[in-house]
This record gives sequence, structure tokens and C-alpha cells, in this order.
Amino acid sequence: MEYIFSDRVSNLKPSAIREIFKYAADPEVISLSAGNPSPDAFPAKEIAEISADILKKNPIAALQYSVTEGYTPLRNRLKTYLKSKYNIGSENDSILITSGAQQIMDLASKSLINEHDVVICEAPSFIGSLNTFRSYNCRLRGVPVESDGMNMDELENALKTEENVKLIYTIPNFQNPSGVTMSFEKRKKLYELAKKYGVLIIEDNPYGDLRYTGEDIPAIKSLDTDNIVIYAGSFSKTIAPGLRVAFAVAPNPVFQKMVVCKQGQDVHTNIWSQIVVDEFMARYDYEEHLERLRRIYSKKADYMSYLLDAHLPPQMSYNKIEGGLFTVCTLPDGIDMQEFCRELVKRKVCVVPGNTFLTDENEPCNNFRINFSTPTDEQLKKGIKVIGELAKEMIK
Amino acid sequence: MEYIFSDRVSNLKPSAIREIFKYAADPEVISLSAGNPSPDAFPAKEIAEISADILKKNPIAALQYSVTEGYTPLRNRLKTYLKSKYNIGSENDSILITSGAQQIMDLASKSLINEHDVVICEAPSFIGSLNTFRSYNCRLRGVPVESDGMNMDELENALKTEENVKLIYTIPNFQNPSGVTMSFEKRKKLYELAKKYGVLIIEDNPYGDLRYTGEDIPAIKSLDTDNIVIYAGSFSKTIAPGLRVAFAVAPNPVFQKMVVCKQGQDVHTNIWSQIVVDEFMARYDYEEHLERLRRIYSKKADYMSYLLDAHLPPQMSYNKIEGGLFTVCTLPDGIDMQEFCRELVKRKVCVVPGNTFLTDENEPCNNFRINFSTPTDEQLKKGIKVIGELAKEMIK
Repeated sequence: MEYIFSDRVSNLKPSAIREIFKYAADPEVISLSAGNPSPDAFPAKEIAEISADILKKNPIAALQYSVTEGYTPLRNRLKTYLKSKYNIGSENDSILITSGAQQIMDLASKSLINEHDVVICEAPSFIGSLNTFRSYNCRLRGVPVESDGMNMDELENALKTEENVKLIYTIPNFQNPSGVTMSFEKRKKLYELAKKYGVLIIEDNPYGDLRYTGEDIPAIKSLDTDNIVIYAGSFSKTIAPGLRVAFAVAPNPVFQKMVVCKQGQDVHTNIWSQIVVDEFMARYDYEEHLERLRRIYSKKADYMSYLLDAHLPPQMSYNKIEGGLFTVCTLPDGIDMQEFCRELVKRKVCVVPGNTFLTDENEPCNNFRINFSTPTDEQLKKGIKVIGELAKEMIK
Repeated sequence: MEYIFSDRVSNLKPSAIREIFKYAADPEVISLSAGNPSPDAFPAKEIAEISADILKKNPIAALQYSVTEGYTPLRNRLKTYLKSKYNIGSENDSILITSGAQQIMDLASKSLINEHDVVICEAPSFIGSLNTFRSYNCRLRGVPVESDGMNMDELENALKTEENVKLIYTIPNFQNPSGVTMSFEKRKKLYELAKKYGVLIIEDNPYGDLRYTGEDIPAIKSLDTDNIVIYAGSFSKTIAPGLRVAFAVAPNPVFQKMVVCKQGQDVHTNIWSQIVVDEFMARYDYEEHLERLRRIYSKKADYMSYLLDAHLPPQMSYNKIEGGLFTVCTLPDGIDMQEFCRELVKRKVCVVPGNTFLTDENEPCNNFRINFSTPTDEQLKKGIKVIGELAKEMIK
């Protein structure tokens, strides 16, 4: 049998990061390539407690089919929570519970993108989302990320020159991979540009609650008087990714199409885990829980910064860590980044080459992403030391 | 903002069944419209026990990110189980764990169907799958279902005359909605035709373990020496649908594309529930569990048949129930089925109009689907009585 695949997937490749994970699975390898939350961060005891209660008191609710939109008490809770804490959501929005935030990218793409349409994204950006957009056979147009977010002139230029732009995709807080946060000025500008050119925004915010220093910046969605922003939130970094529970706050007409697409995709998200998340927010002090996560991660972030300062040669730089799980290290010109990363693997340290996150991975790129949430302190110490040593050797 | 949706979803409607559920939610209404497993059938105590153990012994495995392909022990267990019990799977296949079998339809469609391609399906067929195919903007071609499955002449005719047929979709056991089972002769014929015309088959088998009478018939996948069958199995009817755990057995190249699509859709299926399913099969006698389910449902099926025999007027017929969760009742010519169903709702009984399951729901149709797994015996008794009374009134 000769299999003929659809046009949209025939050039689609597995996520390069997931390929790197194959090296990282070697127990001798120190992986700074993951994006996993720290195992310390999971409220495992609380989840066990809640789950036992649910299965005792009302097992049928947790085990039977449920509605596509999501568990109603959780949707109502999020509505109040997001409005009061972040001024997110209005009468013109609805909340959809999804199977991870990845599904929000898929449902929004499926609802909105025709083949050969254009999606504008940050360059670099999260490869998982880029691959989802690609899987609908659209074209990606990258806009360079600066230390305060997307270059706005380049964004306007893209909106002016590209035809059939359907979406602008942004991760405004502690962006993956760069760690960069978009300034409030730029958020307002991005919103105005999207409005002017009649393009929807996807605001992907998995890391927003993980700020370790500085002040929170209002979400783009909080500016959304024109109903042009699809906001993506997730419990993967704040409760547990294995549960696959996330949520979209989307303008009602977009929400309705996403619901129809979700019906055809997985009918509804695992209802047991939805109830667990709802009960977790109800029974425990969620703000104190987030504070605990920030304590765990800011300690790790500080240690990572300390190690980078101690070991990197002066010709290298890295993005200051204000929150999230990642930063990016930049090599000096003249050092081949791909070769650097390959050599690191030989020395049993795994990072993610920066070109992985570009819309065209053949573009020149001299940086790589490192994660500090998953490795132990010991692993961080060894890993960064090896990176520093190799850099010094190669720079000479 | 004027929202412009993609071509593929602009004509997509929410599942008509899910719309009917709105009436069915009225506690005074007797719903024979659902497809839910009986609450008695859930092994809630066992799930609670297993879940408590997992979260105690190895919570991180259940809460952390996992691999897209699915939980390795469950994939290995299914490989052995399916091979030994049903002769399903070979070296040329791989098993993918999915978030419900609905996701198998989505991933297969996404991987294989270009816009305007043709999917051949049974007429009638499961609306959830039909809507998923529609969501990739393909055209559906229905082949009439007879008492022993698809009409094979019509199938060959469709394969001969349609261009760009990519898939044949069939539910060979206790088909939804008709309850019909495809004979072994027809399974072999369908396989030969698919092979001859170079078309892949999706064999959707959510009800295969729920046979109450007669002998099991080998799966089409068990004939698959040419690697042309994507087999879809599910734990929704045999353990619990709320967990959203199902599995595809697909030819390796198709499996690989489906994995890439799943990465972009939900990264992986809720891992906690995957471990629960694996442990359930490991710790308990799964065959005895299935036997228990068959005892529960065959009692309900017998009662339903008894009630239909007692209450339906002689001008009406229904498909004999051999397994699964549904049957279809046919009204005599001259009775408007839509009017019949609307009048039933006024009398607080909900069924699903048969045209819902057709590729073109405007085609003439004089039957409706009824379910016996969800309602209580009391509800079944009342509901079928009302159906009989109304039919007698309308036939006069």
C-alpha cells in the first residue's frame, strides 16, 4: 500500500524538541532541554485527597460523558477569578475548557485558518504552537522579539504587506523560548494594530503566574473592548500537566466554532481532572499555592543566573530571568551554534538549538534555550559548567 | 469585528444529538436519546482504589508531561491482548492511545483527507464521526446499511464512480444507530474492495465487547495482511467515558502522521487515566469485568425488546438487539417521522430522529434511534409505552 497523506501533513515533522528528548532520556545525560514543571511543584497530596473524595461521593459525575464546553462549576469559577484578578473576560466572551492549551491553538486554527492564510508569530516562538499552525497548511510570518517583546514596526509592516493574515500569536509573559516579557506599551500597540487591520490575537499565557521579580503587566485580553483576543490559560504549569486541563477565553462567535471543532476532536476534556482542578481551587488557597510555586522556581532561577554569571565567558550573554521556565543564551558571532549543541550532547548535556523556534529553521541563529525548572540543582551546576567550558574552548 | 471562519467550519453545525440533549436535560423528560453507558457499569470502586495507589506510590508519573504515543505499559498490554484475543495487529502496525475514539477519526482525517476528498460511510452512521469528517471539508458518500451490514454492490459502485475516495468508515458491530452487525462475508468483501481500489478502512469498534447473543465475528482488522485498516477501540463503553481513553491500531506510516497531528492537538492523553486503565486491566479479571457488563446490558436489552413487542403497533418494526446500546424503530410509510419525534418531546420522551445519522439529513427517513443503556427500567417502561401510544394514535 502506498499511503498518500493530506497536503497539510505531508511536510509536517515531529517536534524537534521531542526528538531531542530521545538523547535526554539517557540517564547519564543532563537535560536542560525540557519544559516540564518541577516535580516538587505538583500538589500531589491535595490531588490524591480530592480525587478520593470525588470518587467516593459522586463517582458517576467523574466517569460519565460530559459536555463539550467543560465542567460548568470550573467555567463559572474561572469566569469570576479571571475577571476579578486580571480583568479578563466580558459578556461577549465564553470560557472553553480544553485538553491542554495546545488544543486551543488547534481549535482556533481549525476554526479560523484556511490553507495558505498567514499567521504572524514572534520569532522565535513556541514550536508546539508553530507546528499546530503549520498543520493547517498556513504560512508563518515571524516578527523579531526584542527585550521588550515583538518589534512593532516589523509587526505593522507584516500586517500591511501580507495578505490574508488571520491571527497574531503572542506569548507576552516570559516567552518560550526567549524568556522575554512584552511591555505594556507594546501590548497596547499590538492590540491597536490588530484592531486596525482586523486580525484576531491569540494571547498564550502559560507562565503569567510565574513571575519572580518585577511587576505584573496587564494582559492584552484586559484591553479587549473589541472582542478580538483569544486568551489561552493553562493549569499545566500551575497544577499538573498530566491532567491536560487548560482554558480559552474567546469571543462568543469564535467560542461557538471552537466548541463544534472540539466535539469532533475529543468530545470533552477528561471530566475527572476538570473536577479535581475545580475542587483544588475551591478547597485550597490558590494564591498561596501560586506563591509556593514562585518560591520554588525563583530559587532555581536565581541559582541558574548565578551559575551562568560564574561560568559563561564574557563573549556570551543570556536573557535576564524575570519569570517562566526558560532563558536563551547567545553565542558570539563566529561560533557555529549547531556544532556547539552537538558537541554539548557528546559531553552529555542537552539544550535546544534556537533555530528550532524560528518560522524557518534554516535561518541563521546563534542562541539556544535552557530550562531551569526540571533539572536538579546538582544537574544545573554540572550542566552550566560544561556549557561554560565548551564555550571557552570554542571561542579560544 | 466581523469574524471570518475557515471554509471547513463555516457550514459546520453542533451535533444535532447534543442539541436534543437540551430537552433531555429536563428532569421530567425521559431520554432514550443518549448513548451513555449505564452508571451501574462503571467500576468506580476499583478506579478509586487504583487511583489512590498511583498517587501514593508514583504521583509524578501520573501528573507530569508524558509521550504523545501513549503510556508504554498500556500500549504493550494492548498489543498482546488484541493479538491474542482478536488477532488484531502486526509488525506493520503501532498502537496510539487517544483522548477518546473520536480523536482517532480526527487524527486519521487530518492525516489523510484533503478538502473535497470523499469518505464513504454507512448510511446511517454515527453523527460524531460524520461531523469530524465534515470538519475537514470532505464529501461524504453514504452506502445503505442492510440487516447484515453495508450493501456491497452500492459500496463497489461508490468506489468505482467517486474520485479521490480516501477512507471507508464502518462500525461493523452493533452499529450506531442501527444496531446492525456486518456479516463475516461482507467484512471479507469490504476488505477486498478496499484493497482493490487502494482505499484505507477505518474500523470503529466501540461496542464489540458488548455482544449479548450470538457468536463474535472476526474484526476486519484481523484480515489486514495489506496494512490498510485503521482499527479504533475504546474504553468509553467498557470502563468509563469520562476518562477519555481509547486506542488506534494503525499501519506504521499512518500511525506516525497521527502522532505528529496529536502532538499539535493535545500533546498526549491524560496520563493519570491511562495508568488507571492499564492497572485496571493488570489487577482485575478483565474478561470477568466484560462479562459483568454484558449481564447488565443484556438484561436491559431483553427488557427493551419485551417492551417494544408489547407496545409497538404491528405496522412498526425494530432491529433485533444482539449487542451494543441502541436499536432503531421504523415507522410505517405515511407517518411523518419528524412530526412523530416532535410530538414525543411534547409528551416528555426524547428519541433521536433517524435523519440525524444520514450524510444528507434532508433525505427521507422514517425511523428513529432509541437507547436502552442509560434509562432506568422504570423510564424504559414509561417511554416505550408513550411511543406505542403515539404511534397507534398517528397510524389510526
